[in-house]
Amino acid sequence: MTAGTIHGVGLGPGSPDLMSVRADRLVRAARHVAYFRKAGKPGQARRIVEGMLRDDVTEYPMDYPVTTEIPLSDPRYAETLAAFYEDVAAPLRALAEGGEDVVVLAEGDPFFYGSFMHLYTRLRPHVPVAVVPGITGMSAAWSATGTPITWGDDVMTVVPATLREAALTARIASTDALVVMKIGQNLSKLKRATEQAGRMDDAWLVEYAAMPDQRVVPLAEVDTAPYFSIALIHGQGRRP
Amino acid sequence: MTAGTIHGVGLGPGSPDLMSVRADRLVRAARHVAYFRKAGKPGQARRIVEGMLRDDVTEYPMDYPVTTEIPLSDPRYAETLAAFYEDVAAPLRALAEGGEDVVVLAEGDPFFYGSFMHLYTRLRPHVPVAVVPGITGMSAAWSATGTPITWGDDVMTVVPATLREAALTARIASTDALVVMKIGQNLSKLKRATEQAGRMDDAWLVEYAAMPDQRVVPLAEVDTAPYFSIALIHGQGRRP
Ligand SMILES: C[S@@+](CC[C@H](N)C(=O)[O-])C[C@H]1O[C@@H](n2cnc3c(N)ncnc32)[C@H](O)[C@@H]1O
Ligand SMILES: C[S@@+](CC[C@H](N)C(=O)[O-])C[C@H]1O[C@@H](n2cnc3c(N)ncnc32)[C@H](O)[C@@H]1O
Repeated sequence: MTAGTIHGVGLGPGSPDLMSVRADRLVRAARHVAYFRKAGKPGQARRIVEGMLRDDVTEYPMDYPVTTEIPLSDPRYAETLAAFYEDVAAPLRALAEGGEDVVVLAEGDPFFYGSFMHLYTRLRPHVPVAVVPGITGMSAAWSATGTPITWGDDVMTVVPATLREAALTARIASTDALVVMKIGQNLSKLKRATEQAGRMDDAWLVEYAAMPDQRVVPLAEVDTAPYFSIALIHGQGRRP
Repeated sequence: MTAGTIHGVGLGPGSPDLMSVRADRLVRAARHVAYFRKAGKPGQARRIVEGMLRDDVTEYPMDYPVTTEIPLSDPRYAETLAAFYEDVAAPLRALAEGGEDVVVLAEGDPFFYGSFMHLYTRLRPHVPVAVVPGITGMSAAWSATGTPITWGDDVMTVVPATLREAALTARIASTDALVVMKIGQNLSKLKRATEQAGRMDDAWLVEYAAMPDQRVVPLAEVDTAPYFSIALIHGQGRRP
């Protein structure tokens, strides 16, 4: 028997019509669809494909065991997550070994800070895995601002707001264009770092890019940031 | 009369089915389609939409006046290009003012080092302009390597290979994940910088990502690089 393929499918940033044609076809044809979500939440990836799935689809929600209870630095955090990824990879591997194709939904681009990557490394030694790139959340975020992100010789730096404050400050001070991911609880640290780097006047926060609640605000003016938010500073490079 | 809209449409990195569903619909419905190309060449953006255009479409190829003849640093370079962008923007503006919608094709994502940006800034004060984000060339490039680009707290730096060698070396040495754009004539400088930064063993060159001639090779092994090529170093961040 020929093994099935696990497709890690980038869905883009939120709006269903920002999915690629390839992703759209795979999602609509899929018999088996898996996706991550926070326990008790519908999950952003699943929401994007609402109304697109076959009537006879089987869904495999993968509920994250922890989010904020254990600190990132605690070794139990990594252990719990590793066990979780092993657990959820097993039935997908069994499906592929039984000849079935599986679509794993991924927000944005699967290989850019994506959860799918943790399944990918576990499944790839055993069964065929294919990846469909997607439009990233940051592309939707800078499009939402109505201003191009990089010109000419601009350097663009992407930083997770999980970095320590001094590291964030140094990165913000030393780049032309800036993208900050994973803000949430790290907002006040990010604001201090941006201020210290002297760049607060040029910094924007984009919440829910390409989603129904999309909002663009000066970073200086926000006091909370949702999980789906990205901070940006636009490059000012050479332009004829 | 209502003005028409100029749509800057991101086509993704090369394969037509990596265009978004929104882009696909706009391209197939368009009565007026404009695109940049080097004089005498078919143009990559136009190639991507081959077979998708209406029978009664009008095409507006915009032929670049210079590429390599005048050095980037010569003021005549900027002047020639500025005049060119004014020239090609004028008929598109007239179409929109006459109530017609126009699709401007853009490789990858229009707001990420894109030529469309030069039309955008000139048209936007006068007529409605909408931008459709796209999958970037870099997403296709890291997908082609079969290895995720960023994990956990990784910092990713995007640099144009047009930077001076010392600046390139410093950037390559001080990032987790690296993406280098606009290589072409800058390949030997980039190779020296990567070597000096001590990272040649981890560096890849991806030529023609998501195009028919896609190729992934260790950066150390190449002596020439086409216009459509991207160098990468993968991040090695935290992964449970
Ligand atoms: C685990 S990463 C996943 C990134 C995703 N793979 C991508 O390509 O954009 C999650 C972070 O991405 C950012 N993000 C992704 N999509 C977004 C969107 N549509 N709007 C705002 N932020 C988004 C947020 O910073 C969020 O904390
Ligand atoms: C003017 S920039 C345009 C970038 C484009 N807007 C994007 O989003 O990727 C041109 C550079 O993009 C890179 N590039 C874009 N698409 C590519 C692809 N499919 N394969 C390899 N390189 C690509 C190359 O480095 C090239 O020199």
